Amino acid sequence: MKIKVINPNTTQSMTRLIERSLFTYAVEIDLQVVSPSMGPASIESHYDEALSVPGLLAEIKSGLDWGADAFVVACFGDPGIEAAREISPVPVIGIAEGAFHVASLLGGKFSIVTTLARTIGRAEYLLHETGLGARCAGAHACDIAVLDLEKPESNALETIIEASRAALAADESHAVVLGCAGMAEYVDEVSAAIGAPVVDGVSAALLLAKTLVSLGLRPAKKGEQDFPPAKRYTGLLKDFAV
Amino acid sequence: MKIKVINPNTTQSMTRLIERSLFTYAVEIDLQVVSPSMGPASIESHYDEALSVPGLLAEIKSGLDWGADAFVVACFGDPGIEAAREISPVPVIGIAEGAFHVASLLGGKFSIVTTLARTIGRAEYLLHETGLGARCAGAHACDIAVLDLEKPESNALETIIEASRAALAADESHAVVLGCAGMAEYVDEVSAAIGAPVVDGVSAALLLAKTLVSLGLRPAKKGEQDFPPAKRYTGLLKDFAV
Amino acid sequence: MKIKVINPNTTQSMTRLIERSLFTYAVEIDLQVVSPSMGPASIESHYDEALSVPGLLAEIKSGLDWGADAFVVACFGDPGIEAAREISPVPVIGIAEGAFHVASLLGGKFSIVTTLARTIGRAEYLLHETGLGARCAGAHACDIAVLDLEKPESNALETIIEASRAALAADESHAVVLGCAGMAEYVDEVSAAIGAPVVDGVSAALLLAKTLVSLGLRPAKKGEQDFPPAKRYTGLLKDFAV
Amino acid sequence: MKIKVINPNTTQSMTRLIERSLFTYAVEIDLQVVSPSMGPASIESHYDEALSVPGLLAEIKSGLDWGADAFVVACFGDPGIEAAREISPVPVIGIAEGAFHVASLLGGKFSIVTTLARTIGRAEYLLHETGLGARCAGAHACDIAVLDLEKPESNALETIIEASRAALAADESHAVVLGCAGMAEYVDEVSAAIGAPVVDGVSAALLLAKTLVSLGLRPAKKGEQDFPPAKRYTGLLKDFAV
Amino acid sequence: MKIKVINPNTTQSMTRLIERSLFTYAVEIDLQVVSPSMGPASIESHYDEALSVPGLLAEIKSGLDWGADAFVVACFGDPGIEAAREISPVPVIGIAEGAFHVASLLGGKFSIVTTLARTIGRAEYLLHETGLGARCAGAHACDIAVLDLEKPESNALETIIEASRAALAADESHAVVLGCAGMAEYVDEVSAAIGAPVVDGVSAALLLAKTLVSLGLRPAKKGEQDFPPAKRYTGLLKDFAV
Amino acid sequence: MKIKVINPNTTQSMTRLIERSLFTYAVEIDLQVVSPSMGPASIESHYDEALSVPGLLAEIKSGLDWGADAFVVACFGDPGIEAAREISPVPVIGIAEGAFHVASLLGGKFSIVTTLARTIGRAEYLLHETGLGARCAGAHACDIAVLDLEKPESNALETIIEASRAALAADESHAVVLGCAGMAEYVDEVSAAIGAPVVDGVSAALLLAKTLVSLGLRPAKKGEQDFPPAKRYTGLLKDFAV
Repeated sequence: MKIKVINPNTTQSMTRLIERSLFTYAVEIDLQVVSPSMGPASIESHYDEALSVPGLLAEIKSGLDWGADAFVVACFGDPGIEAAREISPVPVIGIAEGAFHVASLLGGKFSIVTTLARTIGRAEYLLHETGLGARCAGAHACDIAVLDLEKPESNALETIIEASRAALAADESHAVVLGCAGMAEYVDEVSAAIGAPVVDGVSAALLLAKTLVSLGLRPAKKGEQDFPPAKRYTGLLKDFAV
Repeated sequence: MKIKVINPNTTQSMTRLIERSLFTYAVEIDLQVVSPSMGPASIESHYDEALSVPGLLAEIKSGLDWGADAFVVACFGDPGIEAAREISPVPVIGIAEGAFHVASLLGGKFSIVTTLARTIGRAEYLLHETGLGARCAGAHACDIAVLDLEKPESNALETIIEASRAALAADESHAVVLGCAGMAEYVDEVSAAIGAPVVDGVSAALLLAKTLVSLGLRPAKKGEQDFPPAKRYTGLLKDFAV
Repeated sequence: MKIKVINPNTTQSMTRLIERSLFTYAVEIDLQVVSPSMGPASIESHYDEALSVPGLLAEIKSGLDWGADAFVVACFGDPGIEAAREISPVPVIGIAEGAFHVASLLGGKFSIVTTLARTIGRAEYLLHETGLGARCAGAHACDIAVLDLEKPESNALETIIEASRAALAADESHAVVLGCAGMAEYVDEVSAAIGAPVVDGVSAALLLAKTLVSLGLRPAKKGEQDFPPAKRYTGLLKDFAV
Repeated sequence: MKIKVINPNTTQSMTRLIERSLFTYAVEIDLQVVSPSMGPASIESHYDEALSVPGLLAEIKSGLDWGADAFVVACFGDPGIEAAREISPVPVIGIAEGAFHVASLLGGKFSIVTTLARTIGRAEYLLHETGLGARCAGAHACDIAVLDLEKPESNALETIIEASRAALAADESHAVVLGCAGMAEYVDEVSAAIGAPVVDGVSAALLLAKTLVSLGLRPAKKGEQDFPPAKRYTGLLKDFAV
Repeated sequence: MKIKVINPNTTQSMTRLIERSLFTYAVEIDLQVVSPSMGPASIESHYDEALSVPGLLAEIKSGLDWGADAFVVACFGDPGIEAAREISPVPVIGIAEGAFHVASLLGGKFSIVTTLARTIGRAEYLLHETGLGARCAGAHACDIAVLDLEKPESNALETIIEASRAALAADESHAVVLGCAGMAEYVDEVSAAIGAPVVDGVSAALLLAKTLVSLGLRPAKKGEQDFPPAKRYTGLLKDFAV
Repeated sequence: MKIKVINPNTTQSMTRLIERSLFTYAVEIDLQVVSPSMGPASIESHYDEALSVPGLLAEIKSGLDWGADAFVVACFGDPGIEAAREISPVPVIGIAEGAFHVASLLGGKFSIVTTLARTIGRAEYLLHETGLGARCAGAHACDIAVLDLEKPESNALETIIEASRAALAADESHAVVLGCAGMAEYVDEVSAAIGAPVVDGVSAALLLAKTLVSLGLRPAKKGEQDFPPAKRYTGLLKDFAV
């Protein structure tokens, strides 16, 4: 089966990191991992998130041409997920959504450890939308900007481990959800260090997407999930007309 | 005071209709009513909504240069409202939000009468976000596309009156909220016909924005509402870098 | 337009303070600010609140004779608001309700700073009733009795500033709502001191009432909001028969 | 033990009906059943309800002088219950509250059958306040005014039976709660006719009050439930000063 | 009337303690207090709880043969309450449920003081099921195993008093609910020590059961509460066939 | 990896049906599908459900001896799931839970089509526990007893198709969840007939369990999910001592 993973920011090094982190999980999967050709270098505000969506939607369209059986949106804010679902006849799963579902299936409660505090509001919205808010015992920021995760001087791994350990204790939770695709490569090390399950949304969403494809399930195209009505688009975005 | 009303779709005739509907309410207000230079001709899906946001954000920026004291986003889906709030130091009010607050202040419950059924999901999300969902007794579609509202052959006024009357009866509600900026010109006729208060979000949001400005209130720029962090933008959207 | 503001306690000095605080906002408004002829000197318990309602209702009635276009109930417990709405064909807005709506329109979350801790339960009830509870990040008491707000020895202004600053920090909130009509005169000083928006319910409710009148909106008199059925009243309250 | 049942309306025939309905349940109880000396002849609106509270509070005070161990407020709107609790060191139970608790203890869901449709809003508020809203499957009006319940020409018993049977079927519920103290005398006949448990709040609240007294439980007088602060009262209500 | 109280664990000394604690409340009641013949010595996990249910159900059946008018399930997890209600035509009340209802009737909020922290999840579930979660201000563990409550070296009474005092202060609550049938004998001493009402679920549930019987109320046997369909049972549990 | 699927009723023909339905999904899985040696022939009441748990727990224990990497509980009531999780160090997934998660990942809302109406209450409880209740638009019964599903004279397939079609229309939902493990073999035919995605919980839970194992995730054994404390068990259940 073909699954396309879209990192909706434009930073290629992060896209490659995501691709490497999926290597062991891509069994029986023809995998594409890409960034859009337009938009923000990282997504750390509602402004960035809104402006990542045109590029994401373009990648969904080209993915459909490729014959994708499912998509993963690899940013923890699940940007544009509803618009992506409208134009796609195959499943689209966001990594926040994917992480919340997988962490919930473990039983007990989970804590989120994310990058900047200002992104927690979006995570809370997604917890509400998925219905899994009651399973989240707390959301905590590391105060590391997304693109600093890759920089050695940010001490990202240690900081995430420390924040995860503190979250487990403060929240009396049973698992940690990593709140950024850029943390995917740390999942095993953090889990080993804190002695608790750690969920990375990228691999979680990939295997959930594979599950839906294996089960032969595609979303019904009706009502709010139907293809968008055709119409004229103008100016810079004129090519987005459907 | 200066208030800028942004119709986030690109259909100028609808923008002029909105402007006319505000004529009697623009007391003591230096009013600008505009459409963006890019994006969809109407907003009837999550896809349209997502792609209306870049144009909307560009208008917020030019509005700040003009010296706007407040903004109104004149589409009932309140698209991009959170991103707009991040980049604006002055109040930004969506017309769904504005209509819900005004209708709630009347006491009792309200019904929404909107264009296409597929937009009701977004209205329900906004009801949740504003907290005013318990005041809404039902949302009903007229099955008229946004741009058909202006066409005589759509019989829009009669259809809206009929749907409003049916909604009041079925929902045992006390007021009707019109679910599209393009219905603004009908508010008085619908109210007279059904004998119940009818709330148009455009005028409601304008006077609420005026209220905030009169009270000297501007949103605190901190946390999730702070200005977005600066970063590189790429491709078609490269000029959106902040 | 004519708007009557009713301070439901019987302390005239507080009524005058409220009137003064509205001076700059009463543009285009024929304003009446009064206290009832019966009831408690201040409202600090459910007992006081219940016993303020007969006097409030008498003032609504005389206000209708005067030709009021809207009413404001200027006590943060919004006492008798539902009974007042039944007998009034024009809008009645409580100042807690008004403050919650205005603070919500600013985006983000607000904190309440009020007089005595025992009144917080009523504020929580009103947050629930308005639906805006999720926008309130916390409610905090100054431990100053209502009538002591005017006494220099209470150090009310400093205490409110300190409590507001502490609330903003503890709640990570974006605005402060003043939880007593007797604090109305302090709104500008508190805002300047804490560097954040401060909402006074009295001015907020007045301008919201003006908004409803400007929009030509009056509540539907049906169902739970209809005029009360006529009947015999007995004893001390015999003149309340409708 | 001494229990005082207060019918907060001033109609003595209804008070005597309530007293008769409690005859078989008043085992080991020194029972007083009274009406206040002021207020409305029946309670069918928020206006009536608000104006029944001063008379109710006067009866609480005289009941404490008598040595009451507990109070029952015998109107299905539970008027003034919070104010009554403040001035009473012994339990005060409303009949809506009492009925909801007893019906919930039976398991399954209950339907409410009440007098006028406009009182259902208050019942919904009390369901929320008690927390027992999820146990209520529906509330239905008989469209009989309170004082008409006693009039043979209202066919009250048959109407209540019919409404109860319809409610059980429509709501798929397990029990009926009678929504007015004036229906107390019908409880056995309705239950026999519909073949399902029927809960009358007056007897339910009396036995719950007895339970609290038997267990030696009295409410803690602190915080929101503490005695109200002393202050001056004015005009018609000057004798209510505490 | 005949009421059977079932301690669903198999520790006879605890059953006798429960029986003694009910001595003063068993007025007009023919009381049976028993343990099942199979199952766990104490109930401190979901595993224990699940395995206490077969023995409990056997006791319900023999209680019906005896002619019981009502049952009390005397474990704070209310194990098997829904299955017990299916096979019983008379009321079945759990002691957590009973305690929550009685504590709620006192007004204000209550704190739970229980044995082991791992049982708090079950208490939260029961708070949700009863609808009374909003009345609970907090749940706190004493870290004493159930069977250690009776051992002098556990210092159970002092520990419970200390935990109760701390809970009242931390939660700003008005009453304490004891979270284990094995604490029933301490209720008066804890209340005297902390100066606040303390609710023991065993006596609360007994008097609530008596209330239902006095009111002549039996659950409707329909829908989810109907007798279970007959079928074959196999192996160790073959005698449970109905 | 080794996954054990436990049908908690004792009807072998149904267990074999479940096994056959999993044939195509058991890629890379060493699969065991069993029934317990004790308990009810089918699970259609809280009574049956409670009495299926001892047998289920015995199968979990023997499955751990076999080296299971995960368990699936193949009854739509997810009986004993919390007790099973306590004694298992590896994931345990119920089929209702699994179906709800998979259906939610498709976007939109789902309808449940189940056997007997009396089981809907349990489904609603599980919807609440998983947090996915808002995604369910309705639950509908076929009025076919579990063991009749296999009997040709029940016309099960046609009845399920008809109920599914009706549910999609009435609920305006996007997918159907089959509410019984005994319906697993019909999933493809129902989907083809109604032209919408149909989720069978057995295959859904199996692939979710595989996902957790692939991700290397095991539940944290702490707090409410820790192994149960050791203690004495008595009588028929004495061998359940841990």
